Amino acid sequence: MPRVDYDALEQRYKAQFFNSLVGPKNVCLVGTRDAENRTNLAVFNSLVHIGSNPPLLGIVFRPDSVERHTYENILSTEEYTVNLVSEYDIEAAHQTAARYPKDQSEFEATGLSTEYIDGFHAPMVSSSPVSFGLVFRENVPIALNGTNLIIGEVQWFKFPEEIIESDGFANLPQASVVGCIGLDAYTKLSIVQRYEYAKPDKPPRIKS
Amino acid sequence: MPRVDYDALEQRYKAQFFNSLVGPKNVCLVGTRDAENRTNLAVFNSLVHIGSNPPLLGIVFRPDSVERHTYENILSTEEYTVNLVSEYDIEAAHQTAARYPKDQSEFEATGLSTEYIDGFHAPMVSSSPVSFGLVFRENVPIALNGTNLIIGEVQWFKFPEEIIESDGFANLPQASVVGCIGLDAYTKLSIVQRYEYAKPDKPPRIKS
Repeated sequence: MPRVDYDALEQRYKAQFFNSLVGPKNVCLVGTRDAENRTNLAVFNSLVHIGSNPPLLGIVFRPDSVERHTYENILSTEEYTVNLVSEYDIEAAHQTAARYPKDQSEFEATGLSTEYIDGFHAPMVSSSPVSFGLVFRENVPIALNGTNLIIGEVQWFKFPEEIIESDGFANLPQASVVGCIGLDAYTKLSIVQRYEYAKPDKPPRIKS
Repeated sequence: MPRVDYDALEQRYKAQFFNSLVGPKNVCLVGTRDAENRTNLAVFNSLVHIGSNPPLLGIVFRPDSVERHTYENILSTEEYTVNLVSEYDIEAAHQTAARYPKDQSEFEATGLSTEYIDGFHAPMVSSSPVSFGLVFRENVPIALNGTNLIIGEVQWFKFPEEIIESDGFANLPQASVVGCIGLDAYTKLSIVQRYEYAKPDKPPRIKS
């Protein structure tokens, strides 16, 4: 087993190492619009499923980062969108991580288009295969390192109907949805297999 | 845009639909050992990177589920392992989700082997390409739906040295690490591209 003196690692090396080694991640774009109608779009890879009933999603926010505008907009307007990324939008999604000033929209800067749902304040990404409209529900402070887990409840769903299988499963690779590894690597996905619900008295059974 | 009356969906359909539609997920096995030295292993897909400095990982626990033994062992022994899953262990990993009684180890039931680090109470999965040894740091209750975010600090890392690139990036597909979609689909990953750190005054640049 390789020995790692983690604390001694150079800061950027450390960030690359730990962010990538932790495992495959999701990647999504969070769309907001402030009270002055300035839109904002930022890439995240810390989306976490909190529950299905009601449908809750959490996102971890790091303090004093480029994510700040998104954080402020969510808390002040209480509406935001989460948009999955297709392989055709990888470059634009990555570019939203740049530190643009607040009066420059990442939509305009990256060429991604806004799209709106009637009565919902925040823009979604028009070209995203899957988008969710969320209403802010809880801001959970994580005292350990000053991050915040922002939880929202999904109000509406945009998705291509043809990727939903008969049991409700969304076949995301069919919509070219990508994931990521670490801070800057984007991944295509292929489903190896689905399995039936696991039971102690039965061996693993492939879902047909 | 398809209209979804989410609340009206049948319960299992709803769980499949929302768990899969939320995007690509990680999958990991959490290894614990209780005070009576009974080992436990359970599959999770809610691992979230909380911070790199110190290296913190969070996992969302649902109440009164099959994850209960893992939750209790983490709180009582304060040590646990997080193990990424290779494509060769998918069936065994999925099978750990079955409701085995507390005195039956999922290691024995699924054929996965334990491996120990000197002085660390919890077992890792011998065949996992990447494992972390964690010490419990914080239990963050999520009032909204009664879940808990358990956060631990990484004490040691097991990984194949050859997948670490010169800038610290861990090339997980080279170690056959898989992800998942929803509750039961396991995914292979392929890296499309890595990008340089995004800057407002520069277009996206592919990392060479």
